Amino acid sequence: MRGKQDRPADQAGLRKANLALILDLLRGHGQQSRAQLAGLSGLSKATVSNLVSELEVRDLVRPAGIVAGRQGRPGMLVEVQPRTVSGIGLEVNVDYLAATAIDLTGEVVFECRVPGDVIALGPERLLDQLAELARKVLAAVETQGAWTAGITVAVPGLIDPATGVVQLAPNLRWRKVPMADGLAGRLGYSLARITVDNDANLSALAEQTSGNVVGVTDLLYLTGASGIGAGIIADGVPLRGAFGSAGEVGHMAMDPMGPYCSCGSRGCWETQVGLIALLRAVSTHEDPVRDPALDLEQRLTIIRARAERGDRRTLDALQQIGSALGIGISILVNVLNPAAVVLGGYFATLQEWLVEPARREVAARVLGPDAAGARLVPSSLAFNAASRGGAYAAMRRVLDDPTLAPVQTAEATEAPA
Amino acid sequence: MRGKQDRPADQAGLRKANLALILDLLRGHGQQSRAQLAGLSGLSKATVSNLVSELEVRDLVRPAGIVAGRQGRPGMLVEVQPRTVSGIGLEVNVDYLAATAIDLTGEVVFECRVPGDVIALGPERLLDQLAELARKVLAAVETQGAWTAGITVAVPGLIDPATGVVQLAPNLRWRKVPMADGLAGRLGYSLARITVDNDANLSALAEQTSGNVVGVTDLLYLTGASGIGAGIIADGVPLRGAFGSAGEVGHMAMDPMGPYCSCGSRGCWETQVGLIALLRAVSTHEDPVRDPALDLEQRLTIIRARAERGDRRTLDALQQIGSALGIGISILVNVLNPAAVVLGGYFATLQEWLVEPARREVAARVLGPDAAGARLVPSSLAFNAASRGGAYAAMRRVLDDPTLAPVQTAEATEAPA
Repeated sequence: MRGKQDRPADQAGLRKANLALILDLLRGHGQQSRAQLAGLSGLSKATVSNLVSELEVRDLVRPAGIVAGRQGRPGMLVEVQPRTVSGIGLEVNVDYLAATAIDLTGEVVFECRVPGDVIALGPERLLDQLAELARKVLAAVETQGAWTAGITVAVPGLIDPATGVVQLAPNLRWRKVPMADGLAGRLGYSLARITVDNDANLSALAEQTSGNVVGVTDLLYLTGASGIGAGIIADGVPLRGAFGSAGEVGHMAMDPMGPYCSCGSRGCWETQVGLIALLRAVSTHEDPVRDPALDLEQRLTIIRARAERGDRRTLDALQQIGSALGIGISILVNVLNPAAVVLGGYFATLQEWLVEPARREVAARVLGPDAAGARLVPSSLAFNAASRGGAYAAMRRVLDDPTLAPVQTAEATEAPA
Repeated sequence: MRGKQDRPADQAGLRKANLALILDLLRGHGQQSRAQLAGLSGLSKATVSNLVSELEVRDLVRPAGIVAGRQGRPGMLVEVQPRTVSGIGLEVNVDYLAATAIDLTGEVVFECRVPGDVIALGPERLLDQLAELARKVLAAVETQGAWTAGITVAVPGLIDPATGVVQLAPNLRWRKVPMADGLAGRLGYSLARITVDNDANLSALAEQTSGNVVGVTDLLYLTGASGIGAGIIADGVPLRGAFGSAGEVGHMAMDPMGPYCSCGSRGCWETQVGLIALLRAVSTHEDPVRDPALDLEQRLTIIRARAERGDRRTLDALQQIGSALGIGISILVNVLNPAAVVLGGYFATLQEWLVEPARREVAARVLGPDAAGARLVPSSLAFNAASRGGAYAAMRRVLDDPTLAPVQTAEATEAPA
């Protein structure tokens, strides 16, 4: 049954779609006159003028000077309003919490990462710390006078997006944690504006929006953290699977009788290329790199330094992990045939030593010439990808429905509750 | 950029889309009056009457009697015309050729499978035999007075759909075989109406259209033949990847240092669960089941008989293959999270012995409860799935654009060249 679903249901729906279209065009093409927007959108000039006025009233676009018109008539340019609206992304991971805020132009207006032992904290105390971090972002954004479109939290696990409950996060040792509720309650922030999503899915969104693979429609993002997950984008659309748990690539059975994994199974890819496997491979038990007082960043700095000075054990370990990484990627490329596989997290941090051995395995094991067209691309966002993606996802609410942004009046510039 | 692409470009495009919509509604809902079609489509009654008339003139629908109307006014029913249009599917596989013809209602009007040693034949002689089979189907369909919408050929390999060239089919030992051209030339059939696609993709289409998983939007079809491929449907849409080679699951590296595969790599899934691996596992070199004079069907009959009478070697081999099947499926389920994994080919023929060990591995190795919702479903179409899917794909041409069907005049009922 085609046809009907594609049409907006009513006048209000049509108007929302047209407002969203104009906003998208301004974000994609930069400053434009109303006549240019009419040309790009296929809408009449009168309709465009009307839509632009509404976007101005909601503080989403602003005048941007005058350009000489073709018949000598000058045209007034408009552009997306920076700094008035923020999308906020938060990330919970095994070793750290992260936060990013972006504005409507996509510019990052706030970003930070704080180390933390999330497993030891447990869900309740973690939520306290996450709320504290969120308050810091909200304060920073409010200082700039911006209204927040929403908050999206990235978590490495299976999420129920409808309720914002983390169903299962083996690496955090979490089961059924009501993340959205817990955060909304602590912050006094509208539950309707908080969403929770898988970290890899959000990272893929970030890469596709602002990273090294902008515009690539078939890609795979691999988290390189304690857990290994994939965010899959196929033909431009996130692939989530029948029940939302696609991309659990860390649990591919690479070595069916191999070591036990946090999920209870054996020989999962994560046991070969997760952060813990990296630490085990590069060090003995007594090695300072395993000092519990160190955070992720410090550990990776030590490993990089050793690799740079040619330490044999470190180089052998990275070679072995790079190969295991490549074998797993070759499976994913045979299954999904992406144009790019983005290497996130520590895979990006240690790319000089991991990418070549990985590429060799991929070239040897993928059916078809040149790895069936798949490039391996280290992420430029590294450990910031998930919170960055969260910020884009949060902003999507307003980009898809600009009428959610409050109308600015002379008296009040406050957002509705 | 949204909005514009969704609208048909012009009046002719809109009319085609509406004709296709009416035809889809009649195929999905059975006999309907014009008033009912107006209700289902959202189009006016006058428009529907006009569209139905055009479909009648093109012999795609026919009157189907009278039903009492709500206000006492009788309504004339219409229904899809059976037997006037045929979609033809052909399949080339290592051990056999197959053909299916369906009519507009989806009913199979012709189906056959002939054994053959496709590798030994080589591309040119294979094309001769395939053309001979196609002539047989075309003759059968013409005898019934039907016009053919097109021919779609299923091949186990990487296909360039634009040119109909088989780029690489390791199990057939083929490289760059111009399948569409070769067939069109031999048949004197319009090249524009011949398409070539991957066997697993077409099988997935067949299963979703008429098999055991009708209407399931996230599924995976696994060929169980000499080659192992997957047809992937994600969120209702075939997943083909960036360059059309998604689903090459037979070459997943299950045992990186394992035996060599036809693709040149080592330890591919195919070397564990392909037909040749089955034959090796159930028999020694001298075993009659390996007699080159036997065809696939006869071999599987012998294996079934041995398993049924409890032959230890056979049962152990099937158990081992079932486990290897399940380990590979667990990887695919972790990556794709389908609602159903359809077991095709010999996996269906020997389902009594393969499904349980496979299910155990899947349950143990997929993250999330109950294999993340994935059911294992033996195919009801078995070795007919690919040609059946080809027939549906060929019919799609006319279903998407009913104006391709020739207008029937009193003098001539022939199709245009």
